[in-house]
Amino acid sequence: MADQKKMVESITSMDVDFAQWYTDVVKKAELVDYAPVRGCMIVRPYGCAIWENIQKILDEKFKATGHENVMMPLFIPESLLQKEKDHVEGFAPEVAWVTTGGAEQLSERLCVRPTSETLFCDHFAHVVHSYRDLPKLYNQWCSVVRWEKTTRPFLRTMEFWWQEGHTVHETAEEAQAETRQQLEVYAEVCEKYLAIPVIRGRKTDKEKFAGAEETYTVEAMMHDGKALQSATSHYFGDGFAKAFDITFQGRDNQLHHPYETSWGMSTRIIGAIIMTHGDDNGLVLPPAVAPIQVIIIPVAQHKPGVLEKAEELRQKLSAFCRVKTDVSDNSPGWKYAEYEMKGVPLRLEIGPRDIEAGQCVLARRDNREKTIVKLDELETKIPELLQAVHDGLYERALKNRQNRTFTATTFEEMKRLASEESGFIETMWCGDLECEMKVKEEAGLTSRCMPDEQKHIGDVCPICGKPAKHSIIWGKAY
Amino acid sequence: MADQKKMVESITSMDVDFAQWYTDVVKKAELVDYAPVRGCMIVRPYGCAIWENIQKILDEKFKATGHENVMMPLFIPESLLQKEKDHVEGFAPEVAWVTTGGAEQLSERLCVRPTSETLFCDHFAHVVHSYRDLPKLYNQWCSVVRWEKTTRPFLRTMEFWWQEGHTVHETAEEAQAETRQQLEVYAEVCEKYLAIPVIRGRKTDKEKFAGAEETYTVEAMMHDGKALQSATSHYFGDGFAKAFDITFQGRDNQLHHPYETSWGMSTRIIGAIIMTHGDDNGLVLPPAVAPIQVIIIPVAQHKPGVLEKAEELRQKLSAFCRVKTDVSDNSPGWKYAEYEMKGVPLRLEIGPRDIEAGQCVLARRDNREKTIVKLDELETKIPELLQAVHDGLYERALKNRQNRTFTATTFEEMKRLASEESGFIETMWCGDLECEMKVKEEAGLTSRCMPDEQKHIGDVCPICGKPAKHSIIWGKAY
Ligand SMILES: [Zn+2]
Ligand SMILES: [Zn+2]
Repeated sequence: MADQKKMVESITSMDVDFAQWYTDVVKKAELVDYAPVRGCMIVRPYGCAIWENIQKILDEKFKATGHENVMMPLFIPESLLQKEKDHVEGFAPEVAWVTTGGAEQLSERLCVRPTSETLFCDHFAHVVHSYRDLPKLYNQWCSVVRWEKTTRPFLRTMEFWWQEGHTVHETAEEAQAETRQQLEVYAEVCEKYLAIPVIRGRKTDKEKFAGAEETYTVEAMMHDGKALQSATSHYFGDGFAKAFDITFQGRDNQLHHPYETSWGMSTRIIGAIIMTHGDDNGLVLPPAVAPIQVIIIPVAQHKPGVLEKAEELRQKLSAFCRVKTDVSDNSPGWKYAEYEMKGVPLRLEIGPRDIEAGQCVLARRDNREKTIVKLDELETKIPELLQAVHDGLYERALKNRQNRTFTATTFEEMKRLASEESGFIETMWCGDLECEMKVKEEAGLTSRCMPDEQKHIGDVCPICGKPAKHSIIWGKAY
Repeated sequence: MADQKKMVESITSMDVDFAQWYTDVVKKAELVDYAPVRGCMIVRPYGCAIWENIQKILDEKFKATGHENVMMPLFIPESLLQKEKDHVEGFAPEVAWVTTGGAEQLSERLCVRPTSETLFCDHFAHVVHSYRDLPKLYNQWCSVVRWEKTTRPFLRTMEFWWQEGHTVHETAEEAQAETRQQLEVYAEVCEKYLAIPVIRGRKTDKEKFAGAEETYTVEAMMHDGKALQSATSHYFGDGFAKAFDITFQGRDNQLHHPYETSWGMSTRIIGAIIMTHGDDNGLVLPPAVAPIQVIIIPVAQHKPGVLEKAEELRQKLSAFCRVKTDVSDNSPGWKYAEYEMKGVPLRLEIGPRDIEAGQCVLARRDNREKTIVKLDELETKIPELLQAVHDGLYERALKNRQNRTFTATTFEEMKRLASEESGFIETMWCGDLECEMKVKEEAGLTSRCMPDEQKHIGDVCPICGKPAKHSIIWGKAY
């Protein structure tokens, strides 16, 4: 038990220093290692396995809705990046530039993609000629680079991994429907797989993607009350199509510009999983993406029959869940602490007395509840308990968000809440940038979104007193 | 049929101009589009789906042998690249350099990874401390960049996609076994899945990977007799471990350097598939990786019941193969040509008379053989025919290699064969670089490998007359 104590002691308590707790968990759960380049990360096997599980879920959903994967180049010529005015203004300040290839000084700089709208547009101009070529529903899995000053593993890194969907459509309506459809895919993945409740909504003009007409977002609240934008979906209208001269012959035999969208979810979501569900014992993983769903710990494993039984159970369980047995020399206590740190949803303890009684102990990671289960009931009990862990995590996260969501009808109240509480503040808003800026400067809050579920909190904007157009959610964000 | 003719006419015959045939196929089968950056490629949905199928096969095999995926950074600091002397000499001349990040001039240049040995070594130095930490069996899926002067889609591009395995072991023997095991995985994937017969062998010192002690290769012969190195597996000894100061406490409580390997297969293999199996009608895909294994073409589809039957069959077939129906307005002839171009292994034709007779026509892509099959026998017939296509492709490729493989016992004969024939030339070799260089200069051939299946063709090296150490295969390579 000395080992176990040592391992647990080495994490900072989340209530003492949430940022340090995060860093500790990311490191101790062996999710990442620091890279030789400042601000980049190495995603270790355990972190990578979580991402692969998320990828599998998303990729299947994308393909089920007719999307196809492509692979686009890493480099964008400077002139191509500059084609859409708002887009280049948003991204040029934070890109990495390749200036030398081999021994050759390049005549035109190449940027390492921060996002690939410009490449997709250039390609669409090659392959879209007629309405018969539409829609093109593309996605790619890759990493992108943004030259960030301050970085934290998963949350903000110079390089991160993501998928970026890019689609082109005959009509604005179709593109708008695609934008909303993909936002709903993200919301579903967050809620049904990652156990993260999200608020669906639209970004303000100030917060929308560089070059987009509209940006939709799913916003999650972390354990500490801060917001994390979990995925975004953009509607571009025909702005990019015009800038890149993408045209198609329509059903009316005239040339038209098509309408585009893009949408993405990144490895940031792993940061959201950590900060939504984690606790002072480490990571807590939602069962749907946990690399190990059940860890079998043999107790008194030197006793005859224990390791054999553990192996028999592992084989049996592997038919319906991701299972591993730890047969190392470490003590059961040390192992308990290790797999708690790694956030494994269920622990199965099996020792000589259990074997005799034809049963085992199942311990839930989320609430540490233990259940004695007959060995011949594991096939139904384990899926039930995994679902219970998922539901428990979702409920706890939802409750945290509810407890930390406030409404305000005056600017004074907003400022007071912002300084006294950590969470979401919902108010009315006139829609003016000036008021949004004032909230940022005087209350230190940014707008998260105008939620799909609009509320009537009052008739006027609490900042300027003018008639309100929307309800809006404010917060501090990662 | 006019459409069909036009489509087929637009490919150059492979016997007229093999290089142009290749370019035509790659473009017409919609595998790639040219990127805005010279020498880079866009892999379009059809090409990407082939790569995804290859990835799935490899990834499962890697995981089944205990390998784990990780994600390493894109950038390598110049000082890190320089740590292993042979490695930097091999790669530094052909890398892309990032010199600017945002507005900031970097104090140290970053290269865009051409391969990731240096990053893995740096990471291994962090995570390997004891023999208990060994082995680490890692792999990553990513793209890498090499500043090539002349490029061709898939075969040689500035950026290409691949997997790179990197492992670190307690003993030399274990690392050597890993190197050979992974080579065998590649050989198996080439032969059993891609229908490409390969020669397993070892590279000469001149041709081995920069920094490796030994490089093993699987070499394939293309339709035109040229060689294509299909995958490589390297044994590093403890050279990298010493250069990067990776040490572990051994079972003897002393500090030791571990032994390393790396191994990779890339999107080049798609070039190998094209050039091994393709014909004058376009691509011919091995069934195991074909995005569409069976294309259903309704004949006289305006007649009542035809489209319904085609859809019924599609649903039925989708339980055991990758199937698509083309219900577009194009003529059956046009569709036949299109899916031949795309290399779909089997075409299923179904028209009113077939429906009446409870049968359909199955046409093989590889030899154009047509079979009439009862609809209720499709479940067994289709898997059989897919296997037959695979076997047919493999046999044809093997015969081509056999027909184009020559042996020589004198240098004169080597030179004559090199100028008159296109294929492999097998000879004895003394093992000296000097002779290898002479073969390159005077016969225009490079060494492909010293095959595992050593032959006794004579006692002396035909170039210098000294005693021979190995049999070796020479060729012209892509
Ligand atoms: Zn206002
Ligand atoms: Zn010689």
